[in-house]
Amino acid sequence: MAGNSFGKLFNLTTYGESHGAALGGVIDGCPPGVDLDFDAIQHELDRRKPGQSAIVTQRKEPDTVKFHSGIFEGKTTGTPIGFVIENTNQKSHDYSHIKDSYRPSHADFVYDKKYGFRDYRGGGRSSARETSCRVVAGAIAKQVLKNLEITAYVSSVGTMKLNKPYSEIDLSKAEENIVRCPDIEMASQMESYIKEVRSKGDTVGGVVSCVIKNVPVGLGEPVFDKLHAELGKAMLSINAVKGFEYGSGFHGSTMYGSDHNDSFNNDGSTKTNFSGGVQGGISNGMDIYFNVAFKPVATLIQKYETIDKDGNTVEMQGKGRHDPCVVPRAVPIVEAMAALVLVDYFLINKMYS
Amino acid sequence: MAGNSFGKLFNLTTYGESHGAALGGVIDGCPPGVDLDFDAIQHELDRRKPGQSAIVTQRKEPDTVKFHSGIFEGKTTGTPIGFVIENTNQKSHDYSHIKDSYRPSHADFVYDKKYGFRDYRGGGRSSARETSCRVVAGAIAKQVLKNLEITAYVSSVGTMKLNKPYSEIDLSKAEENIVRCPDIEMASQMESYIKEVRSKGDTVGGVVSCVIKNVPVGLGEPVFDKLHAELGKAMLSINAVKGFEYGSGFHGSTMYGSDHNDSFNNDGSTKTNFSGGVQGGISNGMDIYFNVAFKPVATLIQKYETIDKDGNTVEMQGKGRHDPCVVPRAVPIVEAMAALVLVDYFLINKMYS
Amino acid sequence: MAGNSFGKLFNLTTYGESHGAALGGVIDGCPPGVDLDFDAIQHELDRRKPGQSAIVTQRKEPDTVKFHSGIFEGKTTGTPIGFVIENTNQKSHDYSHIKDSYRPSHADFVYDKKYGFRDYRGGGRSSARETSCRVVAGAIAKQVLKNLEITAYVSSVGTMKLNKPYSEIDLSKAEENIVRCPDIEMASQMESYIKEVRSKGDTVGGVVSCVIKNVPVGLGEPVFDKLHAELGKAMLSINAVKGFEYGSGFHGSTMYGSDHNDSFNNDGSTKTNFSGGVQGGISNGMDIYFNVAFKPVATLIQKYETIDKDGNTVEMQGKGRHDPCVVPRAVPIVEAMAALVLVDYFLINKMYS
Amino acid sequence: MAGNSFGKLFNLTTYGESHGAALGGVIDGCPPGVDLDFDAIQHELDRRKPGQSAIVTQRKEPDTVKFHSGIFEGKTTGTPIGFVIENTNQKSHDYSHIKDSYRPSHADFVYDKKYGFRDYRGGGRSSARETSCRVVAGAIAKQVLKNLEITAYVSSVGTMKLNKPYSEIDLSKAEENIVRCPDIEMASQMESYIKEVRSKGDTVGGVVSCVIKNVPVGLGEPVFDKLHAELGKAMLSINAVKGFEYGSGFHGSTMYGSDHNDSFNNDGSTKTNFSGGVQGGISNGMDIYFNVAFKPVATLIQKYETIDKDGNTVEMQGKGRHDPCVVPRAVPIVEAMAALVLVDYFLINKMYS
Repeated sequence: MAGNSFGKLFNLTTYGESHGAALGGVIDGCPPGVDLDFDAIQHELDRRKPGQSAIVTQRKEPDTVKFHSGIFEGKTTGTPIGFVIENTNQKSHDYSHIKDSYRPSHADFVYDKKYGFRDYRGGGRSSARETSCRVVAGAIAKQVLKNLEITAYVSSVGTMKLNKPYSEIDLSKAEENIVRCPDIEMASQMESYIKEVRSKGDTVGGVVSCVIKNVPVGLGEPVFDKLHAELGKAMLSINAVKGFEYGSGFHGSTMYGSDHNDSFNNDGSTKTNFSGGVQGGISNGMDIYFNVAFKPVATLIQKYETIDKDGNTVEMQGKGRHDPCVVPRAVPIVEAMAALVLVDYFLINKMYS
Repeated sequence: MAGNSFGKLFNLTTYGESHGAALGGVIDGCPPGVDLDFDAIQHELDRRKPGQSAIVTQRKEPDTVKFHSGIFEGKTTGTPIGFVIENTNQKSHDYSHIKDSYRPSHADFVYDKKYGFRDYRGGGRSSARETSCRVVAGAIAKQVLKNLEITAYVSSVGTMKLNKPYSEIDLSKAEENIVRCPDIEMASQMESYIKEVRSKGDTVGGVVSCVIKNVPVGLGEPVFDKLHAELGKAMLSINAVKGFEYGSGFHGSTMYGSDHNDSFNNDGSTKTNFSGGVQGGISNGMDIYFNVAFKPVATLIQKYETIDKDGNTVEMQGKGRHDPCVVPRAVPIVEAMAALVLVDYFLINKMYS
Repeated sequence: MAGNSFGKLFNLTTYGESHGAALGGVIDGCPPGVDLDFDAIQHELDRRKPGQSAIVTQRKEPDTVKFHSGIFEGKTTGTPIGFVIENTNQKSHDYSHIKDSYRPSHADFVYDKKYGFRDYRGGGRSSARETSCRVVAGAIAKQVLKNLEITAYVSSVGTMKLNKPYSEIDLSKAEENIVRCPDIEMASQMESYIKEVRSKGDTVGGVVSCVIKNVPVGLGEPVFDKLHAELGKAMLSINAVKGFEYGSGFHGSTMYGSDHNDSFNNDGSTKTNFSGGVQGGISNGMDIYFNVAFKPVATLIQKYETIDKDGNTVEMQGKGRHDPCVVPRAVPIVEAMAALVLVDYFLINKMYS
Repeated sequence: MAGNSFGKLFNLTTYGESHGAALGGVIDGCPPGVDLDFDAIQHELDRRKPGQSAIVTQRKEPDTVKFHSGIFEGKTTGTPIGFVIENTNQKSHDYSHIKDSYRPSHADFVYDKKYGFRDYRGGGRSSARETSCRVVAGAIAKQVLKNLEITAYVSSVGTMKLNKPYSEIDLSKAEENIVRCPDIEMASQMESYIKEVRSKGDTVGGVVSCVIKNVPVGLGEPVFDKLHAELGKAMLSINAVKGFEYGSGFHGSTMYGSDHNDSFNNDGSTKTNFSGGVQGGISNGMDIYFNVAFKPVATLIQKYETIDKDGNTVEMQGKGRHDPCVVPRAVPIVEAMAALVLVDYFLINKMYS
């Protein structure tokens, strides 16, 4: 109920605070006999880790994962996979100034109200550092789903927007630049923009888009657990996300049915794909694609007024090592969550076989 | 796993096909001692039912709910509440033409692929008729949550959009017109527009917005089961929904942190509310507000080509009684799903008390 | 959480009170394409129903089940199966005398304390009448599990005990007498004994044994959800059950390892079966067998003293139509619960295929 | 689904193999603000650990627990508690002889069949070493449930049985001897007996009894999740358990209702307690008591024949460090599982308040 687990058959439970001893998790329900590629898992962590480029937070964490169980002679055994990521860079003293105060648009206030007190170091459990565990599990899920291709990329930073459908973009270019935008020219402009925003101590939002290819027909359950509903929940559970749309999305709400309906080809594929690869909550074999909106990071390197826990006005000064724009590092997280949703439905679907 | 249940402590399971004997459901976990207002429950069903106005489907169904259990002398007993809504208007012969064919942008194709065969009458389980059961449960959830005010309304139909923040709108006007748009002039234009679309046998999409007031601080769980993530899943599970955004939403992704952060007042409320009433997945006591995008209904009263189950091209003619625009009837469904999400977190939150 | 659901992939939710309008349930996760034998379902209900013989309660209920959904042209569709059993014999006036009093060893007292009040008619939700819904679902589960043979029988009534291992008994004889004991002579003695007990207005306990043949290897999950642990929970959830043992059971605790270990034959079967068909929580392909102990029914047709809700001593007189011994009617319930446990693991096990 | 989690609101997930790097777990849903007594937690682990006395396995493991999260300044924070117990004594070479063979009455055979292969070192995941994680979580659960007293003890070893009701025993004596039997004379005989059994390379079963005092009225859910049903599942999930009975248990099945019914005192307590503290699945405030039967440990220090994975007969020689009788070390495990069941219902029950 406390909500630190995700997935039904392939179930991930995570734990850990930003500045505790370690973060970690347990994957229960991974099928046995999967030959794990450990470099691929670490590669995904490296794509998410702080300090990876000039436009992300400069906190130094190697984010090395250690596996404790569920793997024998390189293969999954079908028993739970326990793993740990140690925090090597616990600068608790950096955070003493926020012990008794509530930073605007952070979770400080609500944690205190819900739990009575909080681990105030670096945001504690509310830190996006928790997503490192999701990336580990997502990397394993990808290996279970080997034929599927899940590719996320940055499609906008602030008002700077890549105005092309994914089908007209060479998505493989996304990993060639530090913004993770597949349009090299746009990526370069975004990079400059992010640096400029950071130089002012400010932050900016953005959008991550994701495309999933080679999805088998039949994934998803038709009523409450529609495939896109669970994808939406997965994405909205990532820190800083404010919106989710798939297929035609919000734009689809402005269209006529006669334009929006996807006519069939004789092989069951469709001529258009406004549906976004899902009908009635179930995958139809077409590409799944969706957008995820991220708000600007709340930590500014600026002076500001806020309140302390007694309601007094206090002045604070943002400091430390923070991301000016979260979307470049969010790309592997979006992919990981997509993989977790899909692997679960993939396993559930075996019930129908 | 098959996904016909929603909620953890206040759990709804639904069943029923569009043209089966009856739909129904079970609510497990409703607190005991709630004095039920049965008229209020039926009123919610009436807001959703077909045939209620000139701009919705003319299928005639009274949608009368009968309760079988869990209620004694007008009060909930704490035991499961079983209920049934009979289908009085089962016109199976209307649907024989779709038995062997797949309508574009319907679930016919994916049901056949997933389950091997399907109840083809009126879309079977994929019909939005299923949402009547959600409305029953949502109406009871509202009564458990008595102080909360959950108000949904139509904020756009096609490209016609109500461009005002909810705080500048008298939401009580929404129920005074058949479109359920609280701006009377806009509502009138939308009504004409929907009628015009219908006269062409076409359909159009729209957006339902929702505002929740008087939410206590502390609802929601911080990681995977964030309050807005579960709200998103709930909304995306409604038939025809393509997108969900809350607070600043997609627009928020274009903003600077210095503009987007919500400064505190000394009482813990915030001066602005770009957060949309949720921080770190937990309600902060401010109004929760969100938008839900609906695609245009897929059933057109037009001739079109599609394929049959053997992949042959066939010509079909849409007929029957269908909604030209789904949003007016979606308003009570959005409210019901919001109530189901909130009541669940309300009960879970008692764990922390 | 409120516990009216059972099973993970094949999930049953039940509702209904002893003297409400109806009982019913929803089965979510039944595989599609199962050709249902409706007579077999009703037959199981008939084995459980009141009034079936001279040694059970004479309450008259046809216990006819109506299906509302999830079945099309005689086959399951993969969507939820909703069903209803109407209460035709609601004698509310029979129960007014217990409205304000607590019958010893009934649930009256704890319901009042837990929920604040209760539906006092016939025990409300605490009545074993609820098990009729389990029997419906179990009968469908049996049809999914077609090759498995699940056979329960009465092995003791009071101190009268059938002292033979099941392998030396012709289990098919159990259904040939009203006690459901497969030893005809013993059955006849048990029948006389039950009648004698009833003539004194008293009741007596008993044991139901169950054997499951043709179980595939591999059902069950090794840690918390061991196959025998879930079987145990299933049996203990039946009204009046006080104990569960499988394989060597309590007697096994008195044995030496050198006697208790089951040596392998070369085909993987074992020479003995003290394990009871389960090793480490997982079926090993040998017969599963277990015993379920039932207490004597609490309702006596005698005068007795008890307390009312204010703690005053009051005199009561048991009356109405009650079972002098519950085990003959418990046989189909034990089988139903065993089927529900097995079908769930059968479906979960597909994850490993 | 893979069953490595236990509990709904207070949820424990465990991982780890007998000879892997470490075992560990995550507790999700522990209430915030609990001042943890870490010595008490380690004390419970010490009661379970190998090598603690002359009658248990001499494997040397300190079983030291390290907490990674969910605790701040000595108090639980309400976020998940991750913990790890490292394996310091991984003698993999001890187990190479069982790599390709199936030990009788062990899980070797079923793991190979279910998962396709297995971590054969020391039984892998099927080892009772997994229960160390349950003991950690149970120790924390006990601290949440502070007023409850949960006391388990050894009531029989082989045919040697303590024939007294718990109410006539000074349970505090159980921890004063290495058998954990509260009758000192009987304990001494049991100790000699276990040593004798071990000297022959044999093993013997036994029974652990448990008493829970100060239980509030109202814990438990009335239908499938009855309090005693969940207790039964919890106990049956412990390695080597073959049976569970509560209150009058199997003996109760031989009794008359007129003897078995528990008459009320005017304060709502009962004069007798054949019910075992639970009515209709809900605690009634009387002591809960139950028995758990353990089979003899399967590993004998003897020569024996068995089969290898190709079905060939092979001769094996049991060796290593094993328990001749599991019940002394099972006592803290039984208590831990009881605590986990109770804390969960304690939290669920807040829903009704």
